Amino acid sequence: MKIAIVGATGAVGQQMLQCLEERNVPGELKLLASARSVGKKFTYKGQEIAVEELCEESFEDVDYALGATGNDITKKWMPWAKKNHVVVVDNSSAYRLDKDVPLVIPEINPEDIQKHHGLIANPNCATIIALVALNALRKEFGIKRMIVSTYQAVSGAGVKGIHDLEVQSKDPSVPSTAFPYQIAYNLIPQIGDFDDLGISKEEWKMQNEGRKIWHDDNLLVSCTCVRVPIFRSHSESIFIECEKEVDVEKARALINEAAGCVLKDDPKNGVYPMPLDTTNQDLVFVGRFRKDISDPTGHSLSLFCCGDQIRKGAATNAVQILQELIK
Amino acid sequence: MKIAIVGATGAVGQQMLQCLEERNVPGELKLLASARSVGKKFTYKGQEIAVEELCEESFEDVDYALGATGNDITKKWMPWAKKNHVVVVDNSSAYRLDKDVPLVIPEINPEDIQKHHGLIANPNCATIIALVALNALRKEFGIKRMIVSTYQAVSGAGVKGIHDLEVQSKDPSVPSTAFPYQIAYNLIPQIGDFDDLGISKEEWKMQNEGRKIWHDDNLLVSCTCVRVPIFRSHSESIFIECEKEVDVEKARALINEAAGCVLKDDPKNGVYPMPLDTTNQDLVFVGRFRKDISDPTGHSLSLFCCGDQIRKGAATNAVQILQELIK
Repeated sequence: MKIAIVGATGAVGQQMLQCLEERNVPGELKLLASARSVGKKFTYKGQEIAVEELCEESFEDVDYALGATGNDITKKWMPWAKKNHVVVVDNSSAYRLDKDVPLVIPEINPEDIQKHHGLIANPNCATIIALVALNALRKEFGIKRMIVSTYQAVSGAGVKGIHDLEVQSKDPSVPSTAFPYQIAYNLIPQIGDFDDLGISKEEWKMQNEGRKIWHDDNLLVSCTCVRVPIFRSHSESIFIECEKEVDVEKARALINEAAGCVLKDDPKNGVYPMPLDTTNQDLVFVGRFRKDISDPTGHSLSLFCCGDQIRKGAATNAVQILQELIK
Repeated sequence: MKIAIVGATGAVGQQMLQCLEERNVPGELKLLASARSVGKKFTYKGQEIAVEELCEESFEDVDYALGATGNDITKKWMPWAKKNHVVVVDNSSAYRLDKDVPLVIPEINPEDIQKHHGLIANPNCATIIALVALNALRKEFGIKRMIVSTYQAVSGAGVKGIHDLEVQSKDPSVPSTAFPYQIAYNLIPQIGDFDDLGISKEEWKMQNEGRKIWHDDNLLVSCTCVRVPIFRSHSESIFIECEKEVDVEKARALINEAAGCVLKDDPKNGVYPMPLDTTNQDLVFVGRFRKDISDPTGHSLSLFCCGDQIRKGAATNAVQILQELIK
């Protein structure tokens, strides 16, 4: 069995390689990237693997591919993979909303994986982290509406984003390469392009992808996405309005048992989710549970959650899907 | 006429000195602080002024005082000021909700100033910035409910907070002096102590102080307060539910004319509020206006705003109140 990582030298591709090794996924590995990365070598399970150039013939001996390239590049190589009957788990947003492409978070809708036609899409990073944090609450209380403000790490813009924060933290006058403005000691309330309503692409994803993953076309989501000077974990301040009356103690108990979650909710003792604590691990930390005091009906709940954007928000989720496929 | 700054060596006290000079407020200045700051000298309108020790006799020749000390110290010196019939504008939260103490944002409720009995309170910084951004919208649409997620600068914790971010940005292993955890490259979803509901003191302020300033006991506010690695401007992601149907173009036009506000809302051309741009100036930048798509009735609006926490969030607002008093 041969697994390819397409876009192997980027932040997500590198994390995919690490996750495959950590989870001891069987099979040989092929690393694909653009011509300028050819010859770079990475160690995988004790062996050195050289990066090969991504081209039409790359997929001839490949069974599964993990996609970690941007939308434009992905649209170029996807037909090559298809022609060779490669089953792809793709992290780009290019095919996420296509009808015949399952969009999967393994803790939530693993059954959708088997409906694939050669391609399974990995959801948006902020969407994965929010939905993992909310899934058990949704089952119990029924979520009608979500109001989300994000605090998104620079790693969401890849290696260049990480580089910008590193360099500008020492010298803020160095121009950004991944962002429209300085990101060190600043916030940028823009992630992706804006439409005529003034809503950014990233802000639409939580509603559009959330509806598909939860199979609920009535889900209402309003989102403000903000880039913050954090290296790799996304945080989200979330207010949910539910069908049933909410119960804070019950919410805590549910998260304590929920797949993919860690309850961090003892604020008087300084226990709450923080992005530094979720960095470089696979679980979503959830806490700051309160009844939303602005909803006198008692149907609303406030919470805060954090998760590693490169791991659970991207690479880990894709590798989990691959593991389900192989199983 | 003599004006005293009590707590003159702190971040807010220093900014008060600068604001008094910039606004050319008449009168002599007296700088009061704790014993360990005695002898420090600061330049004011071209003259050097030495810091004097805060004591019971400090207020004998004082007409007006600007308070920039924490709650405990403020409670100690307030009786001394009262005894000497000094009119105080106090930035601490010690007396903000007292019935006979006006709580004032000059752009919103200047008429309350004249109801004072020797003491006027300056509101919480995040509350000032949000309410300045929302006041014109409230007059037009009627605000029933606010859902707020904050992105609050380290300067809210004073000189020590600024020091922590400066030092930790270079070496994250240096322990925090102002925060419970590392703040560089991290977020801390705690500002102030928590009550039994899991709500922090800072999170209560927006509702409690908002009700008092707007004279609206039915105002509903839910707030999640988060400290971010930014030096001195607070940002806020705000969702409002209104009595009337909202209109985005009308909202923009209102902010364009609103006292204390600058409209920054052309996101397709990269125009939106950012904390770096509001640093060291007195206005609140408001933008990212969208109809809240999670409210199908069309009564809700989303926006993002930023303001300098030490200036408009504290010192400038206090000096504006003083100017109204003198006038």
